Amino acid sequence: MNTYKHEVKYYECDRMGVTHHSNYVRFMEEARVDWLDQLGFGFEKIEAENVFSPVISISCEYKHPTTFKDIIEIEVKISKMSEMKFEFDYTMRSNGKLVCLGHSAHCFIENGRPVAISKRLPDFYQSLKSYISVE
Amino acid sequence: MNTYKHEVKYYECDRMGVTHHSNYVRFMEEARVDWLDQLGFGFEKIEAENVFSPVISISCEYKHPTTFKDIIEIEVKISKMSEMKFEFDYTMRSNGKLVCLGHSAHCFIENGRPVAISKRLPDFYQSLKSYISVE
Amino acid sequence: MNTYKHEVKYYECDRMGVTHHSNYVRFMEEARVDWLDQLGFGFEKIEAENVFSPVISISCEYKHPTTFKDIIEIEVKISKMSEMKFEFDYTMRSNGKLVCLGHSAHCFIENGRPVAISKRLPDFYQSLKSYISVE
Amino acid sequence: MNTYKHEVKYYECDRMGVTHHSNYVRFMEEARVDWLDQLGFGFEKIEAENVFSPVISISCEYKHPTTFKDIIEIEVKISKMSEMKFEFDYTMRSNGKLVCLGHSAHCFIENGRPVAISKRLPDFYQSLKSYISVE
Repeated sequence: MNTYKHEVKYYECDRMGVTHHSNYVRFMEEARVDWLDQLGFGFEKIEAENVFSPVISISCEYKHPTTFKDIIEIEVKISKMSEMKFEFDYTMRSNGKLVCLGHSAHCFIENGRPVAISKRLPDFYQSLKSYISVE
Repeated sequence: MNTYKHEVKYYECDRMGVTHHSNYVRFMEEARVDWLDQLGFGFEKIEAENVFSPVISISCEYKHPTTFKDIIEIEVKISKMSEMKFEFDYTMRSNGKLVCLGHSAHCFIENGRPVAISKRLPDFYQSLKSYISVE
Repeated sequence: MNTYKHEVKYYECDRMGVTHHSNYVRFMEEARVDWLDQLGFGFEKIEAENVFSPVISISCEYKHPTTFKDIIEIEVKISKMSEMKFEFDYTMRSNGKLVCLGHSAHCFIENGRPVAISKRLPDFYQSLKSYISVE
Repeated sequence: MNTYKHEVKYYECDRMGVTHHSNYVRFMEEARVDWLDQLGFGFEKIEAENVFSPVISISCEYKHPTTFKDIIEIEVKISKMSEMKFEFDYTMRSNGKLVCLGHSAHCFIENGRPVAISKRLPDFYQSLKSYISVE
């Protein structure tokens, strides 16, 4: 899978002159969208099936600040999955430095209720499974 | 109608240390939502009728910067209306200074097509009309 | 300490019709700013000393979605602190439901280097310490 | 000059399923940053001279909605300039449709006071001037 790149925008920087910490959660979403596109199962493809994938949890460890025009390279790895839930790890680097480690967990819902992805979208499930990091 | 108050958040300020100019467009929306609530025709009441009200145009003239924790007082006035369109003026003040003059224009759509508000939502139309500034 | 209240804005909701998950990180900042104000040590007071307080890590567990106009009540508790670091827990409720559990960790820097808060801002340190939850 | 491209992000779409109108003001900034980079006078180059360039006014006319994953192509033209002020027009297209017409006006400040750009940054002034649309 290709690494996703986000160039920090002027409006993403705060009074301290650095990228506001809340924006990394958005960069994680951008990278996840791109990763699922590369997998062949984009958000809009899943949503067209009336299945939505809410975020259950997120976390970020900030290692080094970034600022306007920095290119953040985001490596996405699916770290864990079950029938009901899948999890991603994000490693964000900029100018050769580790800037942020992220994590997110997701489930699937249809008509407001959780669904087993292995049954509802078996192709997607198998595809995700084949990318589980085994390290 | 009561004036709407927005307190500037840390994450709304940019590298120059002032409220990023794009945020005033959001403050205008907040003030408009509040104004329509006071009128008795909130967004969610209109949307429950399957009528949506997209923004046709907006403009802002920035007069004075604001920053973290400033209270911006926003006075909303409906300045113009027809069967298909209505327009608002926004006067934003903070610490006794004029900070921004805004304007927005809106129409109504149902199933993706423009509707005459006077026919589709006559009560709302009459109510809006009674607030037209006559100065 | 008083609970902080955030009313969800129209522009904070996403295509699924619910508050976008990244915004809770901003609500946590708003609640933290308010909590520190109540403590008597607002951001701008600390920043006037040339001391800044970057976020080291954040996490959110999303329990229930919220949407436009929901009032989110945020209870902030300082959960842990040392000379170099302090941590907050956030309990967010809306309409009687638990909607999100948050956590954030912070350090202090001066001229880009970490400082021991107990030495640099002893009054603030003592004040924070007196609020540590002992449950 | 090359056209700037912005791909609409999931978090930029609102409850109506379309790009929230406030975001176009941010896309204009992104396109302006890129245009000035192409000119050889990036924001950070100007800001390194302690000169800042606040936005005096902005406007948008929304012609057609866009949504998640749409590519918005933004053509920037400097439409007007004087010693104290310069103005840009933005034409935004997506999928062969005109989606938004934007306008912004800017001045220059140094130590909080307006400066004549022709005197303070003569090279930048001449460069901008050579791009004035004569149509």
